Amino acid sequence: MRHIISLDEMTMDEWHSLYSVCEQIMAHPEDFSDRCRTKIMASLFYEPSTRTNLSHQAAMLRLGGSVIGFSDPQVSSVSKGETLKDTIIMASTYADVVVMRNPKEGAALAASLYSSVPIISAGDGGHLHPTQTLTDLTTITRYRGSIDGINIGFCGDLKNGRTVHSLISALVKFENVNFYLISPRELTIPDFERRLLKEHNCKFFEITGLDPIIPVLDVLYMTRIQRERFVDPLEYERLKGVYILDKGKMTRAKKDMIVLHPLPRVDEISGEIDDDPRAGYFEQARCGMFIRMALILHVLESGRIRPEKLAAKEQPQLCHNSRCITQTEKYLPPMTGINGDKTVCAYCDKEI
Amino acid sequence: MRHIISLDEMTMDEWHSLYSVCEQIMAHPEDFSDRCRTKIMASLFYEPSTRTNLSHQAAMLRLGGSVIGFSDPQVSSVSKGETLKDTIIMASTYADVVVMRNPKEGAALAASLYSSVPIISAGDGGHLHPTQTLTDLTTITRYRGSIDGINIGFCGDLKNGRTVHSLISALVKFENVNFYLISPRELTIPDFERRLLKEHNCKFFEITGLDPIIPVLDVLYMTRIQRERFVDPLEYERLKGVYILDKGKMTRAKKDMIVLHPLPRVDEISGEIDDDPRAGYFEQARCGMFIRMALILHVLESGRIRPEKLAAKEQPQLCHNSRCITQTEKYLPPMTGINGDKTVCAYCDKEI
Amino acid sequence: MRHIISLDEMTMDEWHSLYSVCEQIMAHPEDFSDRCRTKIMASLFYEPSTRTNLSHQAAMLRLGGSVIGFSDPQVSSVSKGETLKDTIIMASTYADVVVMRNPKEGAALAASLYSSVPIISAGDGGHLHPTQTLTDLTTITRYRGSIDGINIGFCGDLKNGRTVHSLISALVKFENVNFYLISPRELTIPDFERRLLKEHNCKFFEITGLDPIIPVLDVLYMTRIQRERFVDPLEYERLKGVYILDKGKMTRAKKDMIVLHPLPRVDEISGEIDDDPRAGYFEQARCGMFIRMALILHVLESGRIRPEKLAAKEQPQLCHNSRCITQTEKYLPPMTGINGDKTVCAYCDKEI
Repeated sequence: MRHIISLDEMTMDEWHSLYSVCEQIMAHPEDFSDRCRTKIMASLFYEPSTRTNLSHQAAMLRLGGSVIGFSDPQVSSVSKGETLKDTIIMASTYADVVVMRNPKEGAALAASLYSSVPIISAGDGGHLHPTQTLTDLTTITRYRGSIDGINIGFCGDLKNGRTVHSLISALVKFENVNFYLISPRELTIPDFERRLLKEHNCKFFEITGLDPIIPVLDVLYMTRIQRERFVDPLEYERLKGVYILDKGKMTRAKKDMIVLHPLPRVDEISGEIDDDPRAGYFEQARCGMFIRMALILHVLESGRIRPEKLAAKEQPQLCHNSRCITQTEKYLPPMTGINGDKTVCAYCDKEI
Repeated sequence: MRHIISLDEMTMDEWHSLYSVCEQIMAHPEDFSDRCRTKIMASLFYEPSTRTNLSHQAAMLRLGGSVIGFSDPQVSSVSKGETLKDTIIMASTYADVVVMRNPKEGAALAASLYSSVPIISAGDGGHLHPTQTLTDLTTITRYRGSIDGINIGFCGDLKNGRTVHSLISALVKFENVNFYLISPRELTIPDFERRLLKEHNCKFFEITGLDPIIPVLDVLYMTRIQRERFVDPLEYERLKGVYILDKGKMTRAKKDMIVLHPLPRVDEISGEIDDDPRAGYFEQARCGMFIRMALILHVLESGRIRPEKLAAKEQPQLCHNSRCITQTEKYLPPMTGINGDKTVCAYCDKEI
Repeated sequence: MRHIISLDEMTMDEWHSLYSVCEQIMAHPEDFSDRCRTKIMASLFYEPSTRTNLSHQAAMLRLGGSVIGFSDPQVSSVSKGETLKDTIIMASTYADVVVMRNPKEGAALAASLYSSVPIISAGDGGHLHPTQTLTDLTTITRYRGSIDGINIGFCGDLKNGRTVHSLISALVKFENVNFYLISPRELTIPDFERRLLKEHNCKFFEITGLDPIIPVLDVLYMTRIQRERFVDPLEYERLKGVYILDKGKMTRAKKDMIVLHPLPRVDEISGEIDDDPRAGYFEQARCGMFIRMALILHVLESGRIRPEKLAAKEQPQLCHNSRCITQTEKYLPPMTGINGDKTVCAYCDKEI
């Protein structure tokens, strides 16, 4: 993996190698504190995300490197009129690795076409967020030794949650993972995830309540349910308590279950369980910093990159997803991919 | 002192030890340029304060450390919906020391309850600003060798000036300090400061004019008078000249008097005296950077911290100060303290 | 050159020495990666300019130094009420070199009056932008070995383009440079540039079309034409194509011509020529970082500076340029200079 845009191509060997480096860093951080001396990370946040931004910055600094960049939407309006291509060429000229967050779907792939250094995507709109998924995998492995064989519950808005989709897509590659998908009927996982689970012969159960199923779980992955997602506000009021994790529900959980959450949370996890040893979400943030250190070391091994010239299809098929990066960056070569039996835009993965 | 939130508990020994390190740094900065190599400071500014922010950052960088964080109100709106607790747990996960400025009174104490690394308060609303006070003490000591026995004048708005209150509270611990409190009758020091001065048997004089008293002063601490503080605008126009320091007033001052100001100033010190050797306010800014270096070294000695669990009172007494951090962060355990014969909120020190 | 405010006083010897260091850095960057260890740059951007800001930051970091500062207009509003003088004294207290961008003309000279460390101007309004000009000279020298004897074309808005004026003013010092000034009649170079070209006996040609002249050029410097500059919108529509560089025009250019642009571009250079080896504008950005490294090393040699006291003229002549720094910073000593037979403001170079 030269760029970190999607985890689809990550092999199990690559994962194990990455995790192994992460473990070494956690055990002996002082051995790594000079590894990126003289290296610069460009941190380009086209929308604010303090947590993700600081995690990557801390990772680079703990390796002895340094950071330039911008962190808020003000500054992105500055570069208004400048193409993503020109900004990326600039950033990859000044820096040795580029971390980018961008609200447009497919922006990370687009950036990689023009960068002379590795791109690490820190999220491209509602599309992908690979370093969050690596953080989740790291935390589970750290707590349990292995991911194989776990019963994992996902709770909340499973329809719109990008982190949930990415994590499910990664977990299907492991052995015997059982999925408990806990959400209101209006907010179940999308069809493509359901298809993926079937293709990999995973056991999965779609249910509406957390309480009955909590005793079987090894990992409970909580996410936020936003009021705005509900057509009927009364439905929201009726349901929200069902998906809030509190002391009462925790009494029925296994002694070694771990609770994860991508953070920031609002009120879907009650503060009263923060001191419960099963609350894993703060440790998850810590793991995120260390796996990002491993990731930075990994991509920097590949050194300067000569971007490949991508030939546009003869009869380009244009993407109609209004949130796709190709809608605003008109110079991008139209590229397609295959997902199941459908032709999709290679940038945003939406059907064409 | 593990966290730097208030200077109330600072002993004279701790002060002398801190100042001694500061002097060593000023004499041989090169001996300290690697002392925080591999250490990270998180600089969390929930309201902008360029001067204080850059001073802390420069201090950390001159020790060989590095800095992450945010510096403007935009970004704090980003973390809207996230509790201070969760933000502090994140920051103390990524960093080795946290510097925080927050507009809510008591926010620094609140942060310290959840941080696994030392918190240095860079100001919590109108409440406390300990590193400014340390800066002031350092500058006086630097110029005069000692604080004991000085005649210090405070001039301007003594009712609302946080830096004035903090400095008075610190100075009463020294020997034979005489206080000249120069302000309009509407803007004299609050009762609790007057009580404190009496308790410590300090000589203090409350006067309305600067001109008559300037010849006896060793130190003149200027502060801003804001027009908005006056009920009667005419009163403001009539008085403002009285509290502006200019060449004329300086001719009557001692040859070795020093003029201090927390900066930024507006027009309360005329630019014409900037070249007067008695103008100490720029040197004060320099001292501020060096004492912050000493402070960072001091708190980093204590290493990782396990936050103490604070038991809430059985019958919690809630604080009614609308600017207190407990008003917005509802999960904070109610805690009280004693100030004289009054029960006060432990966060903001206001009477309950 | 102690401060970098204007290139007017730069001698050819200084230029060659600077370029020579730049070449050494490009050849052996690792030899320089520790040269500014323990040094701090203050980066004060009173208006946003991501590209220029990141270039200077990357330069300092690649020398092993570190950076503090602010990068957006929000924060400059913070220091509202504080004079430029006080901000500069603060920044030069904390840092070893100050890089400043400010929308007011003459702000860089004003800053240098009060700074105890070298000031590098990163642009003062529409006035001067010396590091951009050094970047341009570096790129031409890098591609061609020398600047003497080139045929250089400037294309676009030559009336308002600050980078064009600065570069012309620098190029007249070299031998046998021929100037092709390509612009609409409404947007030709200002009189003072025309006078300068004549004074130095330079050959220059003012023309309206790019296409006919492109075959003779060694260097083509493109700039943006803004629609707002045209009195008649129809005129803009009619002309804009003339000044857009595309594949068609490039076929008529020399095989070793180089295309430069200060960036960011909008559409004045078609993306289709980005892969043409004659497209030099991305390499130009790279050269900018390296010459700034050389510049930082150069100014840091001079160490701490004691600002000279500048005596104000007995009968000060006030500048009436509304964009001049003296309009807002009233304490600045009025200073004048001579330009040809005219008396000009020493800050903004406008006639008094």
